[in-house]
Amino acid sequence: MVSAPAIILVRPQLPENIGAAARAMRNCGLADLRLVRPRMRWPHAKARAVAAGADRVLDQAKLFETVEAAVSDLGYVLATTARPRDQVKPVLTPRAAAAELRARAAARTRAGILFGPERTGLENEETDLADAFVSVPLDPGFSSLNLAQAVLVLAYEWFQAGDVTPARRMPPAARVVPASKAELAAFFARLEAELKACGFLRNPEMQPVMARNIRSMFARAELTEQEIRTLHGMLTGLTQRPHAPRERSAGTATKGRPEASKSPARRRR
Amino acid sequence: MVSAPAIILVRPQLPENIGAAARAMRNCGLADLRLVRPRMRWPHAKARAVAAGADRVLDQAKLFETVEAAVSDLGYVLATTARPRDQVKPVLTPRAAAAELRARAAARTRAGILFGPERTGLENEETDLADAFVSVPLDPGFSSLNLAQAVLVLAYEWFQAGDVTPARRMPPAARVVPASKAELAAFFARLEAELKACGFLRNPEMQPVMARNIRSMFARAELTEQEIRTLHGMLTGLTQRPHAPRERSAGTATKGRPEASKSPARRRR
Repeated sequence: MVSAPAIILVRPQLPENIGAAARAMRNCGLADLRLVRPRMRWPHAKARAVAAGADRVLDQAKLFETVEAAVSDLGYVLATTARPRDQVKPVLTPRAAAAELRARAAARTRAGILFGPERTGLENEETDLADAFVSVPLDPGFSSLNLAQAVLVLAYEWFQAGDVTPARRMPPAARVVPASKAELAAFFARLEAELKACGFLRNPEMQPVMARNIRSMFARAELTEQEIRTLHGMLTGLTQRPHAPRERSAGTATKGRPEASKSPARRRR
Repeated sequence: MVSAPAIILVRPQLPENIGAAARAMRNCGLADLRLVRPRMRWPHAKARAVAAGADRVLDQAKLFETVEAAVSDLGYVLATTARPRDQVKPVLTPRAAAAELRARAAARTRAGILFGPERTGLENEETDLADAFVSVPLDPGFSSLNLAQAVLVLAYEWFQAGDVTPARRMPPAARVVPASKAELAAFFARLEAELKACGFLRNPEMQPVMARNIRSMFARAELTEQEIRTLHGMLTGLTQRPHAPRERSAGTATKGRPEASKSPARRRR
């Protein structure tokens, strides 16, 4: 964690924002908070209230008199800004900034990100030692991010750049075994036989198209083994059921298949 | 904008969070805010104070009694959760969720994102109509995001998914004309001649390596035409200067090159 970037708040005005920034830092695995001349006395109870448990970050926050002192031990510094200056330095998106920060971390270079005061942002002189600017692409008609929100965006991108969570996965708690194609084919065969028998698939010309549409609908659901069993149970129940309406009985549909009864029975209520 | 997703806050507890969420929405071009049974009366002055000008979003916020009613006009719904349930539905990262939402928007499907109350999150029944979960990858030891911060992450990813800002660019205000390689070569030739003349590059064996290292240093800076002129001015000044120390004069170094004098003269002070 030594190589995770420092978050440097320059002349922050509201302790609530410092607290919210600390919380966002903890969310994203950052710990090194530095404050350059905060407007209110420090430490401050309001910061702690908003930090919602990120006390360690607040307790370890370091105070500095100048930006130069706050970045003195760093080898790579980014300056956030809503309005990139006329200084000839690259302007990075937060995502590109995170990639740069990860590259520096891999090279064991200590890095930091400067954030200016709520209303005014960083002064020109305060960005002299920065290697690059970071600007968050936002609606041009409303591009002023709250300070803690800006810290979150940078911290979030830092974390994501090192995270390996699959873009799309199934909940870890759900024991998901995808149905095999053989199980799926067997279910389709049974379903189509039942639909022919009851007369739903009675038009021989339309039959192949309708069958394909029904298969598509189920294919899209990416069914599990358990769900195939549930569907078999549902089919058994529906075909055994008299055609005249009667009061529903949760037991009927899934007789002899207790493991399949849970999900549909719960839904029905 | 019709196709941008709705943000649906379910039983939000703090009006400040609703205001901060509205501000984050405006930052990211979202306008459709829906509230399901907020705990405090609505509208609320504290929400407006925090919204920092995102009044339009608050004014147009719609109130609902149930999640089902709030999503009734939507064709695609995501449910944010810190703890993906055992419901067999995909869990997406915010980035993957943004890609899905952009795809739905392109297909003119109205979409929405559900956010649960601050402390408890969404109830199981409230996610029944959701197509997928979204979970923000965060430090597992501190993964509870503030409600407005969660809204920002999703809104931010939505905006970035449709944004074309280059990952790395120069500030629009800086008139940047990169130096041509001919200008760079001419500067290197002059610099090396001066360094030989003054004796800095005196070891003939080391000369090629040192010259290459000096070229690398300047190459890495990706110099502009203006900066090459400034460097020529600096070189003229330094070589005209007597070797014995004397009081600096900002005029000397850049005589006859007023356009080149600005930047280094300003830095020196």
